[in-house]
Formats: sequence, C-alpha cells, structure tokens
Amino acid sequence: MLDAVLTRIDAGFPASLDRLLDLLRIPSISTDPAYRAECRRAAEWLVGELAAIGFDAAVRDTPGHPMVVAHWTKAGPDAPHVLFYAHYDVQPVDPVDLWTSPPFEPVVAEGPNGRERITARGASDDKGQLMTFVEACRAYVETTGGLPINVTILSEGEEESGSPSLVPFLEANKAELARDVALVCDTGMWDEDTPAVTTMLRGLVGEEVTITCADQDLHSGMYGGAAPNPIHVLARILAGLHDDAGRVTLDGFYDGVPELDPAVRANWDGLGFDGAAFLGAVGLSAPAGETDRTVLEKLWSRPTAEVNGITGGYTGNGFKTVLPSKASAKVSFRLVGDQDPDAIRASFRAYVEAALPPAAKVSFEPHGGSPGIRLSVDNPALAASLGALSDEWGRPTAITGSGGSIPVVGYFKDILGMDSVMAGFALDDDRIHSPNEKYDVRSYHKGIRSWARILAALAR
Amino acid sequence: MLDAVLTRIDAGFPASLDRLLDLLRIPSISTDPAYRAECRRAAEWLVGELAAIGFDAAVRDTPGHPMVVAHWTKAGPDAPHVLFYAHYDVQPVDPVDLWTSPPFEPVVAEGPNGRERITARGASDDKGQLMTFVEACRAYVETTGGLPINVTILSEGEEESGSPSLVPFLEANKAELARDVALVCDTGMWDEDTPAVTTMLRGLVGEEVTITCADQDLHSGMYGGAAPNPIHVLARILAGLHDDAGRVTLDGFYDGVPELDPAVRANWDGLGFDGAAFLGAVGLSAPAGETDRTVLEKLWSRPTAEVNGITGGYTGNGFKTVLPSKASAKVSFRLVGDQDPDAIRASFRAYVEAALPPAAKVSFEPHGGSPGIRLSVDNPALAASLGALSDEWGRPTAITGSGGSIPVVGYFKDILGMDSVMAGFALDDDRIHSPNEKYDVRSYHKGIRSWARILAALAR
Repeated sequence: MLDAVLTRIDAGFPASLDRLLDLLRIPSISTDPAYRAECRRAAEWLVGELAAIGFDAAVRDTPGHPMVVAHWTKAGPDAPHVLFYAHYDVQPVDPVDLWTSPPFEPVVAEGPNGRERITARGASDDKGQLMTFVEACRAYVETTGGLPINVTILSEGEEESGSPSLVPFLEANKAELARDVALVCDTGMWDEDTPAVTTMLRGLVGEEVTITCADQDLHSGMYGGAAPNPIHVLARILAGLHDDAGRVTLDGFYDGVPELDPAVRANWDGLGFDGAAFLGAVGLSAPAGETDRTVLEKLWSRPTAEVNGITGGYTGNGFKTVLPSKASAKVSFRLVGDQDPDAIRASFRAYVEAALPPAAKVSFEPHGGSPGIRLSVDNPALAASLGALSDEWGRPTAITGSGGSIPVVGYFKDILGMDSVMAGFALDDDRIHSPNEKYDVRSYHKGIRSWARILAALAR
Repeated sequence: MLDAVLTRIDAGFPASLDRLLDLLRIPSISTDPAYRAECRRAAEWLVGELAAIGFDAAVRDTPGHPMVVAHWTKAGPDAPHVLFYAHYDVQPVDPVDLWTSPPFEPVVAEGPNGRERITARGASDDKGQLMTFVEACRAYVETTGGLPINVTILSEGEEESGSPSLVPFLEANKAELARDVALVCDTGMWDEDTPAVTTMLRGLVGEEVTITCADQDLHSGMYGGAAPNPIHVLARILAGLHDDAGRVTLDGFYDGVPELDPAVRANWDGLGFDGAAFLGAVGLSAPAGETDRTVLEKLWSRPTAEVNGITGGYTGNGFKTVLPSKASAKVSFRLVGDQDPDAIRASFRAYVEAALPPAAKVSFEPHGGSPGIRLSVDNPALAASLGALSDEWGRPTAITGSGGSIPVVGYFKDILGMDSVMAGFALDDDRIHSPNEKYDVRSYHKGIRSWARILAALAR
C-alpha cells in the first residue's frame, strides 16, 4: 500500500510543486505589520488545501497572526494520533537588491551544483517543509482513501517574530492539541544525502550582571591605584567561569548533565563530521571549550557558559582615562539533559556574590531560562521515523543535536506533555533568512515521500 | 602696585567670569573628530582675548588641533621670562543624560555646599584654570600698563587626546618656547583652603588591545562551546594583570620605581590625609591596589595598570546570543620614577601575546606614553610661587604629588630643558572628566589673584 502511495507521489509531483509555488507567492512576513493581511491569506490558503484533502481545518484567530488547526480522526479511536507542526510565516526579504529574482515570485531552475532548486523567501523555512507533509497526506488519502493514523496539523504564523501567541494558544487548547507525539518539521538534513532526526536541543539561561564600585565615574589619574575598578572586578569574575580544561566552574553546574548514550555516540562517530573544517570555515584555527570533548559534543551535548556582550568605561574613539563606576556583561548558559535553569542561575549569582571585593556591588537582570530537550532513543515514534527515513534515502539516518533552541519543542513538552520528533529536509546551503533562499526540488520530492513512509511506519 | 592689581581683579571679576563662560560655551572636545571646528574656534577665541590684552598672539596650525602662542616681551631683555601652559580642549561628555544642565551651557549657581560654582564641561579642566592666568595678566596690564616679567603663553587643544602634535611643535619651536621656567596650570588645591604646588606627577602609557577570534560574529547556539570567544580571552588577560596582592604582574613592571624619600613621606604624613574618607566620598568602602601601601602612596608614588574601557558583543537593550568576532579594551599604565614607557608597553604586549590561545589574534593601538616627573625642590621659581600662594590663601602651601599625568611637563623638561611649577585651583570634588564638572567661583577668583601675586614674586 505504501508503494502505491509513493508511486502516486511521483506521478503527482508536478502538481505538488505548483501548489508549493502558489503558497510561496503569498508574502506572509510576520514581523512587518504591512503584511498582516498576507499572513491571513496564507493561513486561509492552507486551510483550503487541507479541507480539500479531507481535514477538518480552520483558521483560528489569535491576538496576532492566526493559527491553522486541522484534524484527521478517521483512522479511528485506537490508531495513534500525532501532531504535525510547521510554520507558514516567513522572514523579511531585506536586502532585496541582493536577490537574483523577486523573493515572492518563485523560480524553479537548475542551481550551480546542477540540482533543480526552488528560489523564493520561505522555500526552505518553512513553507517547503510544511508542504512536504501536506502533500504526503494528500497522496495517502487519494491512494488509500484515508490516512493510516490520526493527524492534527498545527501551523503558526508568528515563528519568525517570536511566537507571542503560541503559548497562550497551546494553553487554551491543550485537550485538542496534546497528542501521542509531535512531528516538527523545521530542521535539516545532515548533508544532502543523509537524513537526520534532531533529538537534542540545548536550553538557555540568560543573565545580565552589572558591577558597581564608586558611585560616579572617576579620573583614573586622581583615583587610579586606590579605587576599585569594576572592569577589573568583572574581568576576574568572567575569567573565573572556566578552568584551564575549559570546564565551567560554577558549583553544581554539571548536575544533570548526561553522558552521551553509546548508540548516539556511535551514530555521531559515523557522521564523519570534520570539526576542524567546521571551525576553519569561520577563520578559527583551534577550538575552545572542554579539552576532553569533541567539537560535535561541545555543540550538541555539552553545556556552556558564554559572554555575549560586555561594556564598561569609555568605548568611543580615542582614549579617556576614566575609572568607571559600572561595568556589565550579558552571560548565557546553554543547558543540556536535566540541568535546572533556576539552579544554574542561582549558582552563577552565588559565584559572583562570593567573588566580589568589599567595595563592589552587583545587580542581576534575568533574560529567560529554558531547560535542554532530549528525545529518548527508546521513543517508538523516533525509531519508526529513523527507519522510514533510512528507507527513503538509502542510508542510515543521523541522530543529531542542535546547539540552538527551537522554543516550540519546549512548549510542546512543558504545556502539552508531548515529545517531539524533529525531522526536515533543509540543507546547510539553503540560505534561510538570507537573500536567494532556496529549497532543492529533491528535498521537496523526497521529503514528501519521507513523510508518507513515516506515516506508514507510525501505523505499525 | 600689586595691591592695585588685586583691587582691579576684584572690581573686574564679573567681566572675568563672563569671559570664562564664553569660552565654556565652545564644545572643544579634542578626541572626537566631529568637534574639530569647535577646537579651532576655541583657539581663535583665546587669541582674540590675548591680543586684546596686548600679547603678540597667534593661532598656530598643526596636523591636529591648533596651538595658541602668545608673547609679552615688553618687560625688557633683563626681566625673567616664563612660559605659561594650560589647555583649551576638553573631555567628551558622555553619559550626557547624567548631566543636570547641558555640558556646554555653563550655569553659575550655589552648590550643595553653599558655594557658588560654575557647572560645565571644562570649567575646571582646564578652561577655568587657563583663564585664571589670562585674567591676571589682563588686570596687571590694565592697572600698571604692562606685565612685571616677560611671558609666553602656550595653549594646546589636544591635551585630552594624547597631545599628538605637541612634541613636534615643541621641537620645531625650541628657541621661541624654551624660557626660564614653565608655569603649568592643570592641577589642584590640597583642599578648598590650602593651596598646593605639585612636584611629582605620574606618567602614562595608553594602549588599546583588540582580540579577534572568528572572522565574523557567530550564533552562540550554533557555535557556542566549540568556538573561542574573544571576550573570554580578553577577560582572562585583563584579570591576569594584577596578582592577589594588587601588584601588576607584567615582567619588569617595577623596574625604576623608587621608594619614597623619607622627608617627602614625613611631609605627606603631615597632610593629615584620610584615605578612607577620600574613597568614602565617592561611595567606596574599601581600597583596591597594593595591599601594603597607603592610599596616598597608591595615588602619588605607585604605578598602576587600569582598564579604562571595554567592549565586545551585544551591548544594547535586551539579549542577543551572539558569539562575537572581536572584543577590545583600553588599558592605561600610570608610571612613576624612572619607569620607561616604551619598556612598559613592550612588556604588556609580550604578556598579551603569550596569553593568547591558539585561535585568537591580537592587535594593539598605542595611545601616548610619557614617564613620571619629579620637580627639584631647589628651584627658585618654586620658592617664589610657594610664598605667593601662601600670601593669597593665608596658610602654608602644600607640596604634593599627583596621580594623574601631565605629559607636557615631561616634554618641557626633555625638549626645552625647562622645569615646571605646577599650580592650580581645582578641587577634588570638581568631577573633572565626569558629568556635572564644576569649578568653584572662589577657585576662579582667588586663582586670578594668586597668579597676579606669582607674577609679582617672580619679578623680584
């Protein structure tokens, strides 16, 4: 039966491509109020397509851009029920003069690498990915009369503008949206031939620390040598965050940090990742961080302490011999496993307080906190997805981490109590958020086939 | 005759004050290229005033901001000939929102201590001090028809930006500028009632250090933990500049640092200086620096390493998880005795280079360098000045050191072979280089009277 679905996907691919191009022509830029009506138009277009397939689909208003929610429950009460998530909004297009074709007039043409590509804003992030799932459902329904499992589709229009309506919407619709597992399609392939499922996302704790010494800026000639300098105090504090082996020194920092599962480590070892080349591409001749960890571990499975900004004293042109009153830094911690954001924040604050010399004072401003996310390798939906993807692409699926966060996955876990399988078909060269964003025709075609296989596997 | 001059000073004081306010309205910020024309305007204003008094005055171009040079030689070839120095440029004004009145709209009003004060950038450093001498000359000429000695006035417009044009100018004009002794007016009173002549100045080496890691800003989620962070590198370098006893760690840093002469130590002990109160007045409950030195030693006779500014990464509102490409700091060293500025700079650079991790690069930008200065107590102009100041203020003149550097005094010694008497009327609470800089009206008035007395004393 799956074979028939795949055959139908291949035969209907030109029409699937046309439908994606229709969606790409709608400039649903969520962050720019001028495109508010376009965002709604994209939502309505999507509802129309889903209703045509047979979903019970609706545009759902929020204080911001609307959600699209669509249900397929004809697989019966005993069948699995998944929640699929992708977003229909896109990034702005500036600088528009760097585009080789208008961003909302999609072009399908051969790229420099000899592969057909779809060039348009949103082709890869995230309309192309969204439509891989929609078209897989269409082919399944058209071939077999239905879907092999129950499916709810949630598509938001604010992912590129901070998702202000998402948490309230999830909280208001828990019973409707909490399903067995989420399928989140906003990530990429490991490389152009190797599919990937992302199972690890680092969390984030942000903290701004301000050191104050004198109650006013001082002249370093008049006071220097006797008056404490908050830049010195801050430098000592920041320098002390890591030891010589690159480990973070905060008390209890590594509590809840798991060692890598041997199966995952084996999978990573098989990826052939070249850490030196990865860093060399941005001009770095050597890594930083824990000396006993690989670059991939540092990026995906190890926690960090990072200073994202620092300022104090005179920073303009020339020189000013000021001894400043204040100095401040923005510090972030990437979290993994069961590290507790509140405990990390508290430990950092305690460390700073303890490091203060007598004449210095400190204040803190919190900037968000979320734990890391890890999908257990035992999750049956993960196993089904890995197998289905390997079948489609003809090679083992990579089990990857991501150093950045995907907030929706955290919300699904916290609010809906639901794990997420993160799979997608974007490539590193898709130029998402940049001019000339593209999605390979192959990503789109095999992405549709991949979801058909995953739907079939989840039914087993 | 001196009494008549002093009477004239008192009678003409409102007009003297108006002239100072005119000068304070010119925003002659030398370190910011945007104010280039304003610096020239200040120089031209000063030449106009000096010419009106009877000086042979001219704006003299340099590659930077112009010099003002004015000669009075009508006292005849046998009279003493002094060189008076003060600067007409001022510090930047940021943070401008901390000013209670616009920095270049001077306000004369009673301060919290019940004394009239002039609030404006440059009121104390150094336009008010400059004008004490100009107005003393004016009163002398208006009262007696001339000055009692020959006087050359040199005023530069680059003192707050490292004086790049000063050395070449002195070297090119040695014969014109090398006089019996220099009178340098850029220092302060011992306290509000006790005049002071400064005989010891710390030197200064300024150095800007920039650390570069990646060749572009990176996303801390994607690269954090593996990519070196230049803020971390910089923090470690700056933290390592001092040991736990507050001593500077650079190789050879204390070469040429003399122990205090016992007689000078006794003099300082007699000043009744309260280090805890000095620091407490600016909100500091404890000192920094060398743990085995008094506060006065730290300020006047000990060298320092100080970070005057630091910047890197995102420093705006909110939070941005950037892993920056660069971070930089402005570092200064106060020098004493025979410490060699070039050797200190070289030692700092060697320390930084040695501390760099493999993937980091460094660049340096020098910002001036001058050695410490000590004036011989045998100088007859010093004795005359001490007596004149004691007469005006009614108590013995303190012989002090100063933690700040006045490089011009070193240049006068090295290039023109001339000692300097450093006298001035600034007070510790003048907030120079800070928001709400002020100069007491009393400092200005009695400063003018003091210079009239010194001119008379030098003629004897």
